[in-house]
Amino acid sequence: MGDIPESHPRRESLLSRQKLVDAASKGMLAESALIAHGRGEAFDYLLGEKTCDTARLAITETAYRLLNSEKCVISVNGNTVALAGPQLIACAAVLNCPVEVNIYYRTPKRMEVLLSTLMEQQQLALKLYPQIKNKISEVKILGGDPDGRIPNLDGPRAKCHSDGILSADTILVPLEDGDRCEALIAMGKTVCVIDLNPLSRTAQMATVTIVDELTRCVPILLETLIQNSVKSINWNNKENLENTIQEILKNFNS
Amino acid sequence: MGDIPESHPRRESLLSRQKLVDAASKGMLAESALIAHGRGEAFDYLLGEKTCDTARLAITETAYRLLNSEKCVISVNGNTVALAGPQLIACAAVLNCPVEVNIYYRTPKRMEVLLSTLMEQQQLALKLYPQIKNKISEVKILGGDPDGRIPNLDGPRAKCHSDGILSADTILVPLEDGDRCEALIAMGKTVCVIDLNPLSRTAQMATVTIVDELTRCVPILLETLIQNSVKSINWNNKENLENTIQEILKNFNS
Repeated sequence: MGDIPESHPRRESLLSRQKLVDAASKGMLAESALIAHGRGEAFDYLLGEKTCDTARLAITETAYRLLNSEKCVISVNGNTVALAGPQLIACAAVLNCPVEVNIYYRTPKRMEVLLSTLMEQQQLALKLYPQIKNKISEVKILGGDPDGRIPNLDGPRAKCHSDGILSADTILVPLEDGDRCEALIAMGKTVCVIDLNPLSRTAQMATVTIVDELTRCVPILLETLIQNSVKSINWNNKENLENTIQEILKNFNS
Repeated sequence: MGDIPESHPRRESLLSRQKLVDAASKGMLAESALIAHGRGEAFDYLLGEKTCDTARLAITETAYRLLNSEKCVISVNGNTVALAGPQLIACAAVLNCPVEVNIYYRTPKRMEVLLSTLMEQQQLALKLYPQIKNKISEVKILGGDPDGRIPNLDGPRAKCHSDGILSADTILVPLEDGDRCEALIAMGKTVCVIDLNPLSRTAQMATVTIVDELTRCVPILLETLIQNSVKSINWNNKENLENTIQEILKNFNS
């Protein structure tokens, strides 16, 4: 798509788009992944391409849930790895938890590319976050040898690790599909999602929904996790989503 | 993406998505075309995936403008060909006008695939619309040998035919980008667009904006052109767009 000028008003959005296009050409993505990214772009456009106050509240709540879990995990798919792999590995480092690749259209080739990309991103994260580099090198990247299944899900998308998604009580899962979010909730887990569509089944079903663009909100989450000073609040996810929708409507009308 | 059950509530949307994925694998699309389709999907979702009354008004007005033009043309890009090529060739047949391929990221390979796909679609249209088959076989497919330029546009996207886009007073251009829409308006043309985002620069700048999904609205347009009984009304595009936005807001709140 060519160079994007520094001054372009939608530079961040175009950079994210370029990351996805590059990931597609590497074989990291399912064929409909670019379409899913486009849907996200439209909702982000309606959000004014900024992190709303409601998203900040959800980021804080997500940090609280993760920091206070017994055992947590960060579940990633192709789009997530492409957009925010190194930053999520850094989050996992702070949490002493694994990162697990869990994709909808699972093929050996895609799994291989995603796992090797995450290994490279782990090396990159060591340079980006030198203050936590010892912890970063200890982050386990799971997904290659699944020995468990998420109940009530058909096909290869159910495959998971018993020492990862299966046994975690709390899961951070950006860009999740509705079926799998429902199945994880049915397992009794605390499910924190990042989803730009506040009306989606995933957004509506999750324990905590961050309605924000991945490359904007994950650095804020990382910072919040590092500070480790968040307090418990009485979290009402439906109410927070409703406030997000009001924010979108305000943008639509202005 | 596998088979889509007949009963799936979002079957039409998934079929359109499949058409785009197939077109991408044939080399018909620019790398960001699937992302653009996804943005459209999100807006269609907000529209309730149906043709609104405001879209019907805009379709009628578009039919009126095309039928009463001195010289019109239908401009198509990769997504348009993939989603509604045969139907647009049928519209061109009724209007006795050419179809011109005019793409943003012009490469010889993409042009070749698009022109040959349109030739195949012309054959398909003969079978789909036997009542106008003589006219269909006369539709000229332009784009291969551009001998003109749209003023005020840089690069290969400005290339056009002097007996097509350059000399037409009225142009139907589904899924147009903002820059080119602006340049066509600056040339004094009547520009009728189909765009799912009522807030886009294209939607806001066009003479008539149909805010609807291509595979839903083009058959209605074709039917209206065949009936050829539309009357002039006092068209206010801004007002119609505003009413469309109100429709979306209603869906958001319900």
